[in-house]
Amino acid sequence: MKQFDIASIPGDGIGIEVVPQAERVLRAVADVHGGLAFQFQSFPWSCQYYIEHGVMMPDNGLEQLKPFDAIFLGAVGDPNLVPDHISLWGLLIQIRREFEQVINMRPAKRLDGIQSPLQNPKDFDLVVIRENSEGEYSTVGGRIHSKEDEVAIQNAVFTRKGTERVMRYAFEVAAKRKRFVTSATKSNGIVHSMPFWDQVFKEVSADYPAIRTESQHIDALAAFFVTRPADFDVIVASNLFGDILTDIGAAIMGSIGIAPAANINVNGNYPSMFEPVHGSAPDIVGKGLANPIGQIWTAKMMLDHFGEEELGTFLLDAIERVTRKGTITKDLGGIHSTEEVTDAIISELHT
Amino acid sequence: MKQFDIASIPGDGIGIEVVPQAERVLRAVADVHGGLAFQFQSFPWSCQYYIEHGVMMPDNGLEQLKPFDAIFLGAVGDPNLVPDHISLWGLLIQIRREFEQVINMRPAKRLDGIQSPLQNPKDFDLVVIRENSEGEYSTVGGRIHSKEDEVAIQNAVFTRKGTERVMRYAFEVAAKRKRFVTSATKSNGIVHSMPFWDQVFKEVSADYPAIRTESQHIDALAAFFVTRPADFDVIVASNLFGDILTDIGAAIMGSIGIAPAANINVNGNYPSMFEPVHGSAPDIVGKGLANPIGQIWTAKMMLDHFGEEELGTFLLDAIERVTRKGTITKDLGGIHSTEEVTDAIISELHT
Ligand SMILES: CC(C)[C@H](C(=O)O)[C@@H](O)C(=O)O
Ligand SMILES: CC(C)[C@H](C(=O)O)[C@@H](O)C(=O)O
Repeated sequence: MKQFDIASIPGDGIGIEVVPQAERVLRAVADVHGGLAFQFQSFPWSCQYYIEHGVMMPDNGLEQLKPFDAIFLGAVGDPNLVPDHISLWGLLIQIRREFEQVINMRPAKRLDGIQSPLQNPKDFDLVVIRENSEGEYSTVGGRIHSKEDEVAIQNAVFTRKGTERVMRYAFEVAAKRKRFVTSATKSNGIVHSMPFWDQVFKEVSADYPAIRTESQHIDALAAFFVTRPADFDVIVASNLFGDILTDIGAAIMGSIGIAPAANINVNGNYPSMFEPVHGSAPDIVGKGLANPIGQIWTAKMMLDHFGEEELGTFLLDAIERVTRKGTITKDLGGIHSTEEVTDAIISELHT
Repeated sequence: MKQFDIASIPGDGIGIEVVPQAERVLRAVADVHGGLAFQFQSFPWSCQYYIEHGVMMPDNGLEQLKPFDAIFLGAVGDPNLVPDHISLWGLLIQIRREFEQVINMRPAKRLDGIQSPLQNPKDFDLVVIRENSEGEYSTVGGRIHSKEDEVAIQNAVFTRKGTERVMRYAFEVAAKRKRFVTSATKSNGIVHSMPFWDQVFKEVSADYPAIRTESQHIDALAAFFVTRPADFDVIVASNLFGDILTDIGAAIMGSIGIAPAANINVNGNYPSMFEPVHGSAPDIVGKGLANPIGQIWTAKMMLDHFGEEELGTFLLDAIERVTRKGTITKDLGGIHSTEEVTDAIISELHT
């Protein structure tokens, strides 16, 4: 019996609604498969927790998470309760960094039965490989003076190590796909970090002669996600650019509620973390409106990460059979609840 | 007789093709109107110029431009000839900064007869007010170490003055429109500059109690431009975020080839500059494929800036009658050449 120990952090808002649903699905996957078990331990770390304890997680939070095979996170943040930069940096981003989850991987792909906002999306199937530990998301910077003289300085920090690492990862992923890597840059406007990014991209590319490459400025690339998404395969992007592109990717899929993501520790020295692209959506909490597919597809990425790619494909196929039948939530134009969609996926697993 | 003296800089690629067309249109506007004249002086500053002279413009370039009522620019940059960070910083961005064109204004609006890539774009009509002089586009930064230890640091610099200025401008624009301002932020991930941005937005908002406001993170906002663009009125954004949003805005309009822009000097101490959103598109040069509408709509913004709003509306109406009739270039699915579209617009002006 293979057992995977998973630390669940439902977090805030609809995270609390969709994580248990995705856990039900994973249990069903294990049932169907046999010889496999998932053990979940839930951690209540969230904005609510912050209000009670003054911290997003206990001092030894990371130590508590460390022994697990993976972290399964819902959504963090509820600006009505705690400012985002506190809640996110105290939990989500801290885990990403301390556990060296240096890669953020986010596919965008159409599912049957789901309407894209695009007229003619064709069959796009791309994956954004985002640097997840440095770049524009940096604690380096500050302010000087006050009132009308105030100046805020924000440093973006790009290391050779981090930049090269994310690029090599992207090339490795591309080698198993359509062998095409697009680099998101902005070296025409941002004149220190982005020419550096371009240079490293060029150097790393040289090691992968069988893989076609291109560089696109982020403004143009964001537009191309709207006008010709089917032309892309693997996109490698900085922390911020990857963040922006993957929300557009989610939008063209039909709803941010279905978009999955993985925060990957490439050395295996700490657990990786699996969290959907969507946020905590406090406005729809408690109404059964939350789309569970983002979290369930994220569970599929966790299966892939465990080396259970066959099970991952099995799960994604079940999800797609359900969307094809129209058992979908309101964000996708459907009438079904969070639980009904989950039930439908589970029953597909059993057929 | 009112005369406006305009410095034309066709620049590179299709800039050289569309600027003269838009000049023809402006002359026609003057003809029809009477009592008004446009005088153009053309400057050859471009990547070609760089190859010949080693600079993008002469040392006294800015002095030469200063006496003009406006600068009418095509497109700058051709990475096959000159690296972008040289060509753009040596001309476009230098003019933006030295002439204190601190506001970049870019409307996105549907024109009749032009297909959006969106299934249901509704009638969106928004304008992005972009900070155009500082923020993420900064020369502050550099590199340390080499090879595997290399680190590139990029500083984004947000001053109170610059931030407040662009926000006040946005509120003034909103006061004449639907009275709704959306601030593009990313304070959940970028923890120095963006919380500062949010704070200034909150303070400036307080001076405009009649105007509704919201803040959206740039990732979500980029997605909303795809899923619900009709919900926005005025969006105020940093240099980089405005850049990205306006390319998406151009994409949902149906083609980046029609999107106009203005770089505005708010004090009137230097000329403002009018340049479309599109780039130099070297790949389609010489084929009559360039869409002149971006440059012509940009001329409309120049008319507005000269206080000739009525003529501006007159011109935009003529453009829209032409697109409605299907006299459009290939990028919009049409069969007409750059010149044919321009001719059609001019003949509409005369009817
Ligand atoms: C060419 C580039 C530097 C420029 C910018 O990013 O400002 C362009 O994309 C624009 O939006 O005018
Ligand atoms: C919540 C926020 C800090 C986060 C990010 O920008 O990384 C989110 O948008 C994401 O993409 O996971």
